[in-house]
Amino acid sequence: MSETNHIWRLRKRPIGDITDDVLSFEEESIPEPADGECLFRLNYLSLDPTNRIWMSDMDQYMPPVAIDDPMRGVVCGTVIKSKNTAFKEGDIVSGIGIWADYQVASPEAVNLLGDIGSIPVIDAFGTLALVGPTAYFGLLDITDPQAGESVVVSAAAGAVGSIVGQIAKIKGCHVVGIAGTDEKCQWITEELDFDQAINYKTENVPEALQRACPDGIDIYFDNVGGDILDACLKLMNLKGRISTCGLISQYNAIEEVPGPKNYPMILMQRLKVQGFIILDYVDRYPEAIAAVSKWMAEGKIKVRQDVTDGLENALETVKKLYTGANNGKLMIRVKDV
Amino acid sequence: MSETNHIWRLRKRPIGDITDDVLSFEEESIPEPADGECLFRLNYLSLDPTNRIWMSDMDQYMPPVAIDDPMRGVVCGTVIKSKNTAFKEGDIVSGIGIWADYQVASPEAVNLLGDIGSIPVIDAFGTLALVGPTAYFGLLDITDPQAGESVVVSAAAGAVGSIVGQIAKIKGCHVVGIAGTDEKCQWITEELDFDQAINYKTENVPEALQRACPDGIDIYFDNVGGDILDACLKLMNLKGRISTCGLISQYNAIEEVPGPKNYPMILMQRLKVQGFIILDYVDRYPEAIAAVSKWMAEGKIKVRQDVTDGLENALETVKKLYTGANNGKLMIRVKDV
Repeated sequence: MSETNHIWRLRKRPIGDITDDVLSFEEESIPEPADGECLFRLNYLSLDPTNRIWMSDMDQYMPPVAIDDPMRGVVCGTVIKSKNTAFKEGDIVSGIGIWADYQVASPEAVNLLGDIGSIPVIDAFGTLALVGPTAYFGLLDITDPQAGESVVVSAAAGAVGSIVGQIAKIKGCHVVGIAGTDEKCQWITEELDFDQAINYKTENVPEALQRACPDGIDIYFDNVGGDILDACLKLMNLKGRISTCGLISQYNAIEEVPGPKNYPMILMQRLKVQGFIILDYVDRYPEAIAAVSKWMAEGKIKVRQDVTDGLENALETVKKLYTGANNGKLMIRVKDV
Repeated sequence: MSETNHIWRLRKRPIGDITDDVLSFEEESIPEPADGECLFRLNYLSLDPTNRIWMSDMDQYMPPVAIDDPMRGVVCGTVIKSKNTAFKEGDIVSGIGIWADYQVASPEAVNLLGDIGSIPVIDAFGTLALVGPTAYFGLLDITDPQAGESVVVSAAAGAVGSIVGQIAKIKGCHVVGIAGTDEKCQWITEELDFDQAINYKTENVPEALQRACPDGIDIYFDNVGGDILDACLKLMNLKGRISTCGLISQYNAIEEVPGPKNYPMILMQRLKVQGFIILDYVDRYPEAIAAVSKWMAEGKIKVRQDVTDGLENALETVKKLYTGANNGKLMIRVKDV
């Protein structure tokens, strides 16, 4: 066990894009767990769109990270010292932690990864710890898709969107994905069996959506907000549902972002628009993990991961999310397990 | 029975406020009912915010009225000739008709007013035919208010809003109404027992809302959209609900109306925003009528009506809705029954 810890601290709130001066990478001493806590070594750090929210002081669902505090992240680690009977040395835990090689956790913040069968830890963490349940509950619980309905997913090649589209296909829906490169569009249609894909960087999204959904949209799974949300609102069918999972197009905005001008469609088409975050579903996690891991084992859900080695690369790597430069679930690997 | 019919026809689509050249008042002959139809004489014409929607070619929940067609309206009339066994001479019917003294109706468009006990026809039609069920389902079905929750209603002295607030009080909620005159604010707090009222024309709405709802807003019943919607979104509590009943602030807009800039609160606070129109609840009308008429009989729901005599005054009168000049349910009386 090294004597030195490495830790990313938030030094200023980003204005617009995340810049290099927003976080600093520090050498510090390794903390001691207090009674009831455990100390774990980081294996994988999940990089997620919500990281940008936590850095800023916008209205949000958790307190923002305080200036000079360690950066918050979704983590997977191996317990190396425990002062809590719920954890023992060698246990693999995942949950909400910080961007640091070594960190202490209370049992409220992390859980045992649990029985993952033959699934490698990196896949179990990458898919099952966060994005799989997010896709599962955000689609099934909030929009209740029926066979034959038309489902549009934005950020469709992303970690959550790619699983949402595959679950919608399992449910018999007509699935259209919106992504930002031809390669991503090809991946979701050819590998993941989406019915159609729209490259929002090269196509006229409203026109392409109309072609892809000639009978309108029944369900829109929103990861991005902004203009794509507006284009989808315009085409929503009577009693359509919008699951609001993310608004990534807006997180880095410097100026106030306009609201969706097609908001009146909520009234005219009697839509339901509902926001959620996965923390709302903690009690029902086992249901999602069982379903998603079964579909993975059957080959009905395919995932890909975009893994970068070294905690020191976390700041440079997280920026990829906001330009769409990542291909799949973005993670930092510190030490395989 | 007069030989002449009077009828309002849509001549052009309004741009901005409704102007006198939008409708024309014509003398025409009285139509003959075809097989399956009945002919009725108009008693009362309900004037509703949605009239402005029907005049325009915006996206909407029914086809707009075609140019040169009779203006559509919610009507109450007395059957004078019937070629349908469901109706007989003298029956009182209400439903969707046109702005005309005499009109024919199919059984899909109108229903018998039914047993209204000792309630005068004008009250039964004014409150029970449309606005009572709208308030009942829009509040109870969509937002499920719980005792102690904080409920904000816009257009709170209006026909629907005033009933929404009173039902929320019956359910034990803390109720704040937003209205446009001191007289209306006084009426809803002193006569209807709302906890607080905000005059949006003289007060700073975001600040007044914060004072009136120091613990945030759990439920917002939206009749208006626009800036008031945005101010409410900003204060919504976790798992809050917004019932989208109307967006009257936007109906007369000439330029594109911006969407609500606080839309991201839907994600951050995991809100549910749901639109509805009362036609969605036709099957459950009896439930609402029974409940609202019982509360009226018990004095728990008070209503007031703003009645103008003469169909020829319909165009001038409907304009009141968009300036808030009406006091209560706006109606035209042609002939009492």
